[in-house]
Amino acid sequence: MLTIGVDIGGTKVAAGVVDDQGQIVAHTLRPTAADRPDVVAQTVAEVVGELSAGRDVEAVGVGAAGFVDETRSIVRFAPNLAWREEPLQKKIAGLVGLPVVIENDANAMAWGETRFGAGRGQSHVVCLTLGTGIGGGLVFDGRLYRGRWGMGAELGHMQVVRDGRLCGCGNRGCWEQYASGNALVKAAREIAEVQPERARILLGLSGGTIEGEEVTEAARQGDTASLAAFAELAEWLGQGMADLAAILDPGCFIVGGGVSRAADLFIDRAREEFARRLTGREHRPFAEVRLAELGASAGVVGAADLARHR
Amino acid sequence: MLTIGVDIGGTKVAAGVVDDQGQIVAHTLRPTAADRPDVVAQTVAEVVGELSAGRDVEAVGVGAAGFVDETRSIVRFAPNLAWREEPLQKKIAGLVGLPVVIENDANAMAWGETRFGAGRGQSHVVCLTLGTGIGGGLVFDGRLYRGRWGMGAELGHMQVVRDGRLCGCGNRGCWEQYASGNALVKAAREIAEVQPERARILLGLSGGTIEGEEVTEAARQGDTASLAAFAELAEWLGQGMADLAAILDPGCFIVGGGVSRAADLFIDRAREEFARRLTGREHRPFAEVRLAELGASAGVVGAADLARHR
Amino acid sequence: MLTIGVDIGGTKVAAGVVDDQGQIVAHTLRPTAADRPDVVAQTVAEVVGELSAGRDVEAVGVGAAGFVDETRSIVRFAPNLAWREEPLQKKIAGLVGLPVVIENDANAMAWGETRFGAGRGQSHVVCLTLGTGIGGGLVFDGRLYRGRWGMGAELGHMQVVRDGRLCGCGNRGCWEQYASGNALVKAAREIAEVQPERARILLGLSGGTIEGEEVTEAARQGDTASLAAFAELAEWLGQGMADLAAILDPGCFIVGGGVSRAADLFIDRAREEFARRLTGREHRPFAEVRLAELGASAGVVGAADLARHR
Amino acid sequence: MLTIGVDIGGTKVAAGVVDDQGQIVAHTLRPTAADRPDVVAQTVAEVVGELSAGRDVEAVGVGAAGFVDETRSIVRFAPNLAWREEPLQKKIAGLVGLPVVIENDANAMAWGETRFGAGRGQSHVVCLTLGTGIGGGLVFDGRLYRGRWGMGAELGHMQVVRDGRLCGCGNRGCWEQYASGNALVKAAREIAEVQPERARILLGLSGGTIEGEEVTEAARQGDTASLAAFAELAEWLGQGMADLAAILDPGCFIVGGGVSRAADLFIDRAREEFARRLTGREHRPFAEVRLAELGASAGVVGAADLARHR
Repeated sequence: MLTIGVDIGGTKVAAGVVDDQGQIVAHTLRPTAADRPDVVAQTVAEVVGELSAGRDVEAVGVGAAGFVDETRSIVRFAPNLAWREEPLQKKIAGLVGLPVVIENDANAMAWGETRFGAGRGQSHVVCLTLGTGIGGGLVFDGRLYRGRWGMGAELGHMQVVRDGRLCGCGNRGCWEQYASGNALVKAAREIAEVQPERARILLGLSGGTIEGEEVTEAARQGDTASLAAFAELAEWLGQGMADLAAILDPGCFIVGGGVSRAADLFIDRAREEFARRLTGREHRPFAEVRLAELGASAGVVGAADLARHR
Repeated sequence: MLTIGVDIGGTKVAAGVVDDQGQIVAHTLRPTAADRPDVVAQTVAEVVGELSAGRDVEAVGVGAAGFVDETRSIVRFAPNLAWREEPLQKKIAGLVGLPVVIENDANAMAWGETRFGAGRGQSHVVCLTLGTGIGGGLVFDGRLYRGRWGMGAELGHMQVVRDGRLCGCGNRGCWEQYASGNALVKAAREIAEVQPERARILLGLSGGTIEGEEVTEAARQGDTASLAAFAELAEWLGQGMADLAAILDPGCFIVGGGVSRAADLFIDRAREEFARRLTGREHRPFAEVRLAELGASAGVVGAADLARHR
Repeated sequence: MLTIGVDIGGTKVAAGVVDDQGQIVAHTLRPTAADRPDVVAQTVAEVVGELSAGRDVEAVGVGAAGFVDETRSIVRFAPNLAWREEPLQKKIAGLVGLPVVIENDANAMAWGETRFGAGRGQSHVVCLTLGTGIGGGLVFDGRLYRGRWGMGAELGHMQVVRDGRLCGCGNRGCWEQYASGNALVKAAREIAEVQPERARILLGLSGGTIEGEEVTEAARQGDTASLAAFAELAEWLGQGMADLAAILDPGCFIVGGGVSRAADLFIDRAREEFARRLTGREHRPFAEVRLAELGASAGVVGAADLARHR
Repeated sequence: MLTIGVDIGGTKVAAGVVDDQGQIVAHTLRPTAADRPDVVAQTVAEVVGELSAGRDVEAVGVGAAGFVDETRSIVRFAPNLAWREEPLQKKIAGLVGLPVVIENDANAMAWGETRFGAGRGQSHVVCLTLGTGIGGGLVFDGRLYRGRWGMGAELGHMQVVRDGRLCGCGNRGCWEQYASGNALVKAAREIAEVQPERARILLGLSGGTIEGEEVTEAARQGDTASLAAFAELAEWLGQGMADLAAILDPGCFIVGGGVSRAADLFIDRAREEFARRLTGREHRPFAEVRLAELGASAGVVGAADLARHR
């Protein structure tokens, strides 16, 4: 039996038909109009129509950035799509005539990776998606953890620095201000601005504004500023994992997202920092720190599987 | 059917026969020799023997401070009793001839409070026991959360201050250095030492060394230093709950432990700080912050109930 | 008798003939080639030649950004002009045939303001020039303070935040990263980036990159982000002045530089923070916090007067 | 010609007759009643009478802890002796019939060390007396620096940690909370309390409460906790000296006070930290960090010499 997984991003809707082994047997992609949140359900319905033609599809799972309520029906708040209390499940279900579940996108990714990717065989998984911010997903005792109202796993918003960098959430010092892709770029820009002599390679690669790809490439070429930015990321990543391990004692961390493509530049150091900072480190096993395996399709695969096990 | 709950503390063993409504039908108490960890199992066996005489007891649950492994059999590490990889379950079971489960003491308390105390009816509970440190217990989807290796819920060891106060765990800046009973006393002593004119009532009450009871009493009498110490505790308690809510989205926090007897002096402010610091606060329900109801017997009741549902 | 004051900036040389009342009787301005530090002395000589034609000029004072040695002859290091151990006094004196003294530019400004501007009549003055960084100048007992090797008054490089923002000097947490014009812009940009809804006016005023003028204008129009940036500047300015007053007990602070043109937006709050944070505040007089009066000509006037009293 | 120097401490008055080479030719010591500030002048007069009998004494210099006004006549505030606006100069002069100058005790020590001790030949000296707090004294261009109202050189009250340890002055994070004798003891006690296994030697040496002497002795015997406390002291001492050098560019730091008797345990590391943290370190000479030479008599010698050069 097949299910469809849909991943609603800020600029496009990705979707795939997924079998019970987590294999994508067909997939498609459409642009979304970020300023027209009202048409997203329509776009999802079209995508589902296209993919289910000639196939026996059982259900649809939809991942979306934002707070999804505990019934997995309503998007309470989506920063990118300006949704407030959006009854997305009802809208889509009405259009497609199939069972539909809505899930937070980072949760969907975490589920995809745990079921069919880096977390196979693990019962307690903390999944970290390092992109603009830090997306978090938690699997406990083999089940996706949602919290009381479906808003758990906002891991990027633990405070790690008192009076620290301002976060989009309105607080200061959130973890994602120190260990995300944005944080990496911020750290590199800071050094390039105040100590340009340490950032010659980086400044040579970037015409004007420094972005993540250039920091990675410059670090590979030995740019001191870029290497320092990765070191800072690694240190904070390790610290945050140590905090989460104190609370959750997972068997495994999975690190994914755009930044993880440069994992060779920070993951070993992040592991060391984690091990060095974990409370009770002399008396306990250490969680593994693995890299995500499914890449950009983790969300589609996870959403589809959540629909199967709805 | 009855079960026995045992709470092994640093100085005494408390135990009770508990029915399936969480009522203690009989209880007893014995001193422990902290320097003789090897005789603790014997003491537990004696207590169980005494309590089960003439009663139909089904199983025994034992709560102990320290890391208890995922099979709930072995105490890997107990700071107060110098246990290392202690096969406590086997020792006690061998002596008492009943099914035995071992559990971390803060977990047992959390379970007791959730089942029969302040957390009744709640599915997602974070329990905080404010004493020397901060003991933590987590109930998710109605079940006690243990983590991959049984070492979850060490909530007091999240880092909240970079390069902060030294913790007994070897790290710096752990939450329990700022929001426990010890932290309260530390804050009051600091003010009393450097600004004795703000601590006149407190210094009058305490002959020499300041302890928690005096801080509480002095605060009730309007002592500025003691009130400031409680305010600091409240602020950090609120911050830590905001961090935990970002990660876990619980429906309810339960605040217990010795410090909670002075809850009137800090709990309202802690609630305010929590609400003011929670990420996404405009788009989500707030967890309740409740006071523990079972007092010192939460551990016995919880351990007994865990044995019942072993 | 007249003297000439010269102010060597990164992009231009400003100079004036100054009388013993601090009045500029003639002035001129030339562009400098920042990439040709070797021709600066020649430019200064031309300017002096032009200004001294037909006038009885006694001596020349030159202010330059950088470390000037204790003999006031050699620029050891100039960040903008790539000078290292530059014998500037000798070069210029050889070309102009007049006595020449070299001084750090912030020192020259401080001296100008103290003698003829906001510090008239004050014996102990701390002068703060808030621009890209924080330039500092100290007048003690009516004399310019230079330190053992001429490198005193680098006030912007006190550390105020452990592990704080990276500074161009290579350290972290320097005061000028929190209380200069650059710091103001940084704070405003941070808010505008992560909380654009608070920065609507600011973002409307600035086409793309936010600069200081826009922050000022937006603050005047009530932009929340810009007002918050000024509040942050004021707080740190007050803290740093409190630190300096603990050390130096001045009678007066003079606040100048480009940022001081927006003083109405921060100076009252800076005074309050200073008063609130000064050690021993209950038992001492408070230094006044005054605004600079001479504007951009303070450096020329100060350099000329230092040449007179060489 | 001889002068008399008097050092008023919290528990005793020390005094000596000093020649113009800084040699003490006679000395004496009396207890003070800390609760009778009104009789201190009388005690000083008796001491002066005793010492001047049969000698040709020109003037009297008195060093006292507290804020001494710019006329060197009035003690505005003395933390230990409960003086407020005490006209000490007038009182003593009236009793002894000799010219009298009052000076802050740390200033007197700084002057003594600069003239006749570790600072001989230095023009720009920062003197640090590490005891309960940090006493500071400044010599600029060969003259004692007092500030506008005589309250300069409160070096221990620069803020080095935002929201840091509470200081007796009412502020938080003052330098003397991190780099004084009290700070050393605090650091050692913290480790001994939370990680007693690292402090076995220290705990063995101290019956109960840990004091400075025990920390020193334990560090000499290799106690890990005590060595860590000294390392922390050294680090903060170096940081503070780097801050002061940025502001003041001294040729020399003199480190004295009770803690300096254990200088072998921290001074090299403090020098390293200073050098590593000094702004502009690649382009400037480094101030020397010397140990005080006059010990407890620096105050008497300095006060006497200040009276000579009144």
